[in-house]
Amino acid sequence: MIQVYTGTGKGKTTAALGLILRMVGAGKKACLIQFMKKEATSEIKALQKFKKQVALFQFGQKNFVFKNKASEADKKEAEKGLKKAWGVLESKKYDLIVLDEINIAVYFGLVKKEDILNLLKKWGSKTEIVLTGRKAPEEFIKIADLVSEIKEIKHPYKRGMKARRGIDY
Amino acid sequence: MIQVYTGTGKGKTTAALGLILRMVGAGKKACLIQFMKKEATSEIKALQKFKKQVALFQFGQKNFVFKNKASEADKKEAEKGLKKAWGVLESKKYDLIVLDEINIAVYFGLVKKEDILNLLKKWGSKTEIVLTGRKAPEEFIKIADLVSEIKEIKHPYKRGMKARRGIDY
Repeated sequence: MIQVYTGTGKGKTTAALGLILRMVGAGKKACLIQFMKKEATSEIKALQKFKKQVALFQFGQKNFVFKNKASEADKKEAEKGLKKAWGVLESKKYDLIVLDEINIAVYFGLVKKEDILNLLKKWGSKTEIVLTGRKAPEEFIKIADLVSEIKEIKHPYKRGMKARRGIDY
Repeated sequence: MIQVYTGTGKGKTTAALGLILRMVGAGKKACLIQFMKKEATSEIKALQKFKKQVALFQFGQKNFVFKNKASEADKKEAEKGLKKAWGVLESKKYDLIVLDEINIAVYFGLVKKEDILNLLKKWGSKTEIVLTGRKAPEEFIKIADLVSEIKEIKHPYKRGMKARRGIDY
């Protein structure tokens, strides 16, 4: 099954984290592959407590800024992430795999949409695959079994509040 | 700060679980109070591993069916939940409190909207309060700092699939 969490509101990565937690509680195994991220966030620290059930990988550079054009180094990182995803799926060790921020990584041209579609076609019926990030391509929505669009109705960033530890990262 | 996760799509409770996980990783404390729920779900099992940082409470009856009218017993349970929320907030031990399914509990008449608004007015500026559930009342959206509406674009329930352990509960 394929799940997509997209839209502008808060709750996409957060929901994927909740899914991983549920998997852990059900005695299953999950793998989180984060694109465009390279930081020891609170969620990474918390998930490290479930080492036997949760595998964590980050592919990105610390200084990637959304407004910038993707650099070759950014693309290289994302390609490594995609390769890792194939490896993880082929290992058949995990019941759930989250490709965090993959939608926006495609949007920024870090990975090719077709490459993700190939992965989904091959593995989507065998493993639970969760795709997160704004601007999910239509093709992902079409192939997915479950799609939630998280709309931002209100967000404190809009009135100048900064990201907060434990809440946003 | 007050956060609301509402809408028909999957990801509301799941996002709140992700927030709790983030809090844990940040070394903070969180409390989950679930309304209209009474079951040892996977998420409850997983969160029990963080006993020093996460408190869990459920108020509901096993046989509450959404279509039915709320019984006196249902209301009594919800009232207990609200009382617990006040106690938890007054203790000032927690950095985050999740009132799971409180929006829909208000919708079904299990708790009074005004009672929740009083709680939000008193504590919303001191503690992070997260409200989840479909059909959040306008007043909750107005008073909240962050609101995400999770729209169901696609859901496998619609084509007859049943809830799955580790994914939905």
